[in-house]
Amino acid sequence: MTPRPVPPNPARRRIPVAVLGATGAAGQGFVRLLAEHPWFELAAVAVPDHHADQSYGEAVRWRETTPLPDAIARRSLGRCDPFDVPIAFSALDDAMAGPIEEAFARAGTLVVTTASAHRMNPVVPLVMAEVNPDHVDLLTRQRQERGWRGGIVAIPNCAAAGLVMALAPLHRAFGVERVFVTTMQAVSGAGYPGVASLDILGNVIPFIGNEEEKLERETRKLLGEYASGVAREARIVVSAHANRVPVEDGHTASVSVGLSRRATPADAERVVAAYRPAAAVAGLLSTPERPIELERRPDRPQPIRDRDRGLGMTVTVGRMRACPLLDLRFTVLSHNRIRGAAGGAIQLGELLVAQGIVA
Amino acid sequence: MTPRPVPPNPARRRIPVAVLGATGAAGQGFVRLLAEHPWFELAAVAVPDHHADQSYGEAVRWRETTPLPDAIARRSLGRCDPFDVPIAFSALDDAMAGPIEEAFARAGTLVVTTASAHRMNPVVPLVMAEVNPDHVDLLTRQRQERGWRGGIVAIPNCAAAGLVMALAPLHRAFGVERVFVTTMQAVSGAGYPGVASLDILGNVIPFIGNEEEKLERETRKLLGEYASGVAREARIVVSAHANRVPVEDGHTASVSVGLSRRATPADAERVVAAYRPAAAVAGLLSTPERPIELERRPDRPQPIRDRDRGLGMTVTVGRMRACPLLDLRFTVLSHNRIRGAAGGAIQLGELLVAQGIVA
Amino acid sequence: MTPRPVPPNPARRRIPVAVLGATGAAGQGFVRLLAEHPWFELAAVAVPDHHADQSYGEAVRWRETTPLPDAIARRSLGRCDPFDVPIAFSALDDAMAGPIEEAFARAGTLVVTTASAHRMNPVVPLVMAEVNPDHVDLLTRQRQERGWRGGIVAIPNCAAAGLVMALAPLHRAFGVERVFVTTMQAVSGAGYPGVASLDILGNVIPFIGNEEEKLERETRKLLGEYASGVAREARIVVSAHANRVPVEDGHTASVSVGLSRRATPADAERVVAAYRPAAAVAGLLSTPERPIELERRPDRPQPIRDRDRGLGMTVTVGRMRACPLLDLRFTVLSHNRIRGAAGGAIQLGELLVAQGIVA
Amino acid sequence: MTPRPVPPNPARRRIPVAVLGATGAAGQGFVRLLAEHPWFELAAVAVPDHHADQSYGEAVRWRETTPLPDAIARRSLGRCDPFDVPIAFSALDDAMAGPIEEAFARAGTLVVTTASAHRMNPVVPLVMAEVNPDHVDLLTRQRQERGWRGGIVAIPNCAAAGLVMALAPLHRAFGVERVFVTTMQAVSGAGYPGVASLDILGNVIPFIGNEEEKLERETRKLLGEYASGVAREARIVVSAHANRVPVEDGHTASVSVGLSRRATPADAERVVAAYRPAAAVAGLLSTPERPIELERRPDRPQPIRDRDRGLGMTVTVGRMRACPLLDLRFTVLSHNRIRGAAGGAIQLGELLVAQGIVA
Repeated sequence: MTPRPVPPNPARRRIPVAVLGATGAAGQGFVRLLAEHPWFELAAVAVPDHHADQSYGEAVRWRETTPLPDAIARRSLGRCDPFDVPIAFSALDDAMAGPIEEAFARAGTLVVTTASAHRMNPVVPLVMAEVNPDHVDLLTRQRQERGWRGGIVAIPNCAAAGLVMALAPLHRAFGVERVFVTTMQAVSGAGYPGVASLDILGNVIPFIGNEEEKLERETRKLLGEYASGVAREARIVVSAHANRVPVEDGHTASVSVGLSRRATPADAERVVAAYRPAAAVAGLLSTPERPIELERRPDRPQPIRDRDRGLGMTVTVGRMRACPLLDLRFTVLSHNRIRGAAGGAIQLGELLVAQGIVA
Repeated sequence: MTPRPVPPNPARRRIPVAVLGATGAAGQGFVRLLAEHPWFELAAVAVPDHHADQSYGEAVRWRETTPLPDAIARRSLGRCDPFDVPIAFSALDDAMAGPIEEAFARAGTLVVTTASAHRMNPVVPLVMAEVNPDHVDLLTRQRQERGWRGGIVAIPNCAAAGLVMALAPLHRAFGVERVFVTTMQAVSGAGYPGVASLDILGNVIPFIGNEEEKLERETRKLLGEYASGVAREARIVVSAHANRVPVEDGHTASVSVGLSRRATPADAERVVAAYRPAAAVAGLLSTPERPIELERRPDRPQPIRDRDRGLGMTVTVGRMRACPLLDLRFTVLSHNRIRGAAGGAIQLGELLVAQGIVA
Repeated sequence: MTPRPVPPNPARRRIPVAVLGATGAAGQGFVRLLAEHPWFELAAVAVPDHHADQSYGEAVRWRETTPLPDAIARRSLGRCDPFDVPIAFSALDDAMAGPIEEAFARAGTLVVTTASAHRMNPVVPLVMAEVNPDHVDLLTRQRQERGWRGGIVAIPNCAAAGLVMALAPLHRAFGVERVFVTTMQAVSGAGYPGVASLDILGNVIPFIGNEEEKLERETRKLLGEYASGVAREARIVVSAHANRVPVEDGHTASVSVGLSRRATPADAERVVAAYRPAAAVAGLLSTPERPIELERRPDRPQPIRDRDRGLGMTVTVGRMRACPLLDLRFTVLSHNRIRGAAGGAIQLGELLVAQGIVA
Repeated sequence: MTPRPVPPNPARRRIPVAVLGATGAAGQGFVRLLAEHPWFELAAVAVPDHHADQSYGEAVRWRETTPLPDAIARRSLGRCDPFDVPIAFSALDDAMAGPIEEAFARAGTLVVTTASAHRMNPVVPLVMAEVNPDHVDLLTRQRQERGWRGGIVAIPNCAAAGLVMALAPLHRAFGVERVFVTTMQAVSGAGYPGVASLDILGNVIPFIGNEEEKLERETRKLLGEYASGVAREARIVVSAHANRVPVEDGHTASVSVGLSRRATPADAERVVAAYRPAAAVAGLLSTPERPIELERRPDRPQPIRDRDRGLGMTVTVGRMRACPLLDLRFTVLSHNRIRGAAGGAIQLGELLVAQGIVA
């Protein structure tokens, strides 16, 4: 594979960024991806429960497979009090994210967050770069209403990210009206220590707190239309069943959809296979050449074999077939820690830079 | 727990039975359960690919956790040529089951089979003892049409068994019209050696050959009505998504159902909790006190914690809640090697004895 | 299998017992096994971090597969302050066990503990009923020295239990002098939540804190000789490598031993196969008919197939063969939550009753 | 990480190579690594059981995570009859490798094999490039004795590869005399379909056919000295216990060693940390910058976190500590499908090119 040429940096310099909640599982994902990011410079790592005088390397229990760069290990670990930084990537726990992110936004930082605290707030853009980049414009209203210089933009829940990426081209082509989705989610979605091994070895847990609600609501917001300061939710009815399975990384979903315009499985496969990101989004560093790949082998996609496509940013759609109840049935696989977390958020940060919102 | 009193044997003597395909994973399940069965006497163990002069103990790679009884280990292994035995339990592979089972039926044996070869034949009763015991009467027409003294009766596919057990009381109370079902099936459902470990460790396989079709058709046949020699299929539209997960035993299913009569989740829970088998079926040795148990803990049922209820014959229903698309959503768990295979078939054999069809 | 006749209760009445640390994983094991114990009456369940006015059923997250009996669920949860009870089974964490167990002992209770706090104390008997029942006599000296009416007796570490059970007959017959042991331990040995799934799915962790030291020291104490108030450690050099593997229950160990008297693998197999518990110990309710079983199939014992032998109290020894470095090589499997925890402790409690130490 | 500069190709052109047994799990590893190899050109893919007129893409069930290059997929699949190719990498099953490899050697091809058929033959070099590159010279005698123009060179068993890489610097520094090794081996070591999921999910299998014998013999041959046409085995006594665990890739081993010269754990750590390949071997394309890495974190190495170091060619040594019975104890981890198979064999092929044996 010839590597894709690196898109040029729209800003004139590497933009300093911070990672909030930098020692957790999601935070480590940010640190790994930002360590050598050509557009961003990892300027600060912070945690809410700060122990003074510790370096990042001392505080973190590093779990990524690539080694922690020495320069980052030696960096001193900051507190999540606002400081002067253009962008902060937030991997904070849902429980504490709310006020911390607001404080940063007030102080002038643009917070790109994986936390759910503000996702459904009507003035907070909930964005996947390929799906609804225009929603970023909600920031204008957010700043006006709140009187903030910075702001908050959110990426979706890790399971919603894969689902919506797969639905987006179908929605545009045929109008998605109804969605039945059963997820089989990886344990890494619960962070670390997260799911106890005694609960999941050889087992299925048919419940993930609040996950079904997030899947149902966020799908509507992401696929909704934006016009003059308002993001209207799409009129899609979603029924979600969320399950945890003994998989390390990669959320799999069995999906049936009802459409407003007739489409055969072959029609749908054509649309999915033809999908390409818009030029503005294709130019972002983290956008994979193909955000969606169509798989025709009958027993794919599978987490261990397909999650790393496009460096974890590509969502795989397979088993496209007719549904006896709705119109189409298929399987979706996405990498929850990359497309559904740090990767998706950094891509969104890049979008903000490319749009000139951060410079 | 006080053990349930053993129901009396309706026949005057232990009825000799054979197990066809006795060395495979399913066959071993039969051998284990029949080894000390008070109504049946394990008279013969047979395989299609017979190597002369081998004992069962020499031929089998015994995988059950209880030890293989010496008396059975020493028994000589027969060929699947018809011999004089009132009942044969067939654990034959789908590929070879068809003609062998017919030969036995012609020769006067009542074959109770876990194979799919004859399941959808309109004169073959497809029966779960609690759900549609009256369908057994199809045997009369089968014998007339074929001129057989014996006959063939079938149990459903292992995933269909759990689903239909859960649907049965809801169907009776509210009329099930539409079913979405996503299964997360255990590897033991594929027999031995079955699923390669390299394919399933830490993985999900979103495909099981013919499984979705079986789930869709067999549900209709099992829940259909029987009258004067005809089993009419129920008018239920089923959309199935079948997945394999790294679980040893126990099929989990996420289910949404649409009903012909309104029902709240509380209504449905009442119906499920109140379900008891009919008296005639409750008197069978293999019928558990509760063929269905309702679980109210939010994260249950789970394979490792709930599959062994009722010695593997009890199906657990949990997470009953409203469905945004249809009426109800819930999770079903059943033990695929017991309720969905040997246990269900032996229970059906007991039903044939209790009904006086075998004596 | 004909069930073994229940040994008669040496005491005239069911003896009231308490479980300390009753809500944890180990504590639940005690509650399950004591719920219907013919000699003991579960009189109290207690935890160190007591929340007033909660019942056991409210406080526990019950994880055993058999349901929690209602009568026990309704029982109010006590604090670990000494109260009047003849025997307390302690499943307390090592960190808090020390002072609590001493307080109970001082107050007159005989504490049978799975915690490591006092195990290596020279006046605390460290006992497996089959291996060194005479060590119980150390209690006399313990009471004298401490001025206690009650006392503390301990069972070994869960990995040491299986190893020592296997070594005991070999030591008696041939004199064990050197032991190499590499363990592959189940996650349940770490309690709940214990090992994070992200750390162990598809993985091996080559480290368990303090486990190697316990294996080395406790082996020597258990196989040591007792005479006139002193338990002299056996002169055995043990080198242990402890690993965690993705197994739910059952510790497997690869073992090589050097002997003081020559023995072929066949000699060793004979000794292991012939092993029977002494009459006094065979009469205990929890002693299995065969505390050790010899396995001759080349790929056994295995956790999922052999851990439940003898209701989890039987240790399986297999793959007996010559060792190029020492004398013998073999594999040992034992159920860590039963033989290595609640089962072994309750058996020891029964021994105290049978010896008349508690009445 | 700055990528290592690519060592220059010692030959003037890319050397054509074949892969024998190209469709199996090991064969696919070769195809993946050779697809873009700068020194080698994948000229032919062959299988013993040839179905005429099939392309590689049609015949293979591709299981690597990187996609099968189209150019290779279209290539027609050959038979394992000798044809004119300088080097053939053999991933043939042990059972059929013997005569096929000899036929190629006779016909002039240099066969680099992962199969065990000829490994212990005294005129077949058994080589790891870093450990005993001088053994390659045995080829001279092999050709003389057999009258072959080509020849056979072998890499060790996948578990022996990791062990010997770790032992090599210790042996040179301190003289290894005795080795106790317990392996916990990944399922991929058994090929595909290999280990049935029902045998290994949540389980340990304490047996791998012939593996212990291979570990014991091959260690002696690899660490032996070569002089004037004879590879003398090292006088090392090895006691191996081989176990299979539910890990996808990466063999872990618990090792104790006895030395001829005293060494503390700190001495051993120094030697391991200081280890660098000899210049001639460092210049090979597949030689990692550090063939051995020392790990000081107490719970490492672990398969999921450390197997991919050095693109799978680096062996990790950790937990170095004193052994109560011998001198040192430690843990070794190596990637069985790379260092122990295709990666090690291709590195050996590179060595043959660098030494001018193939040009």
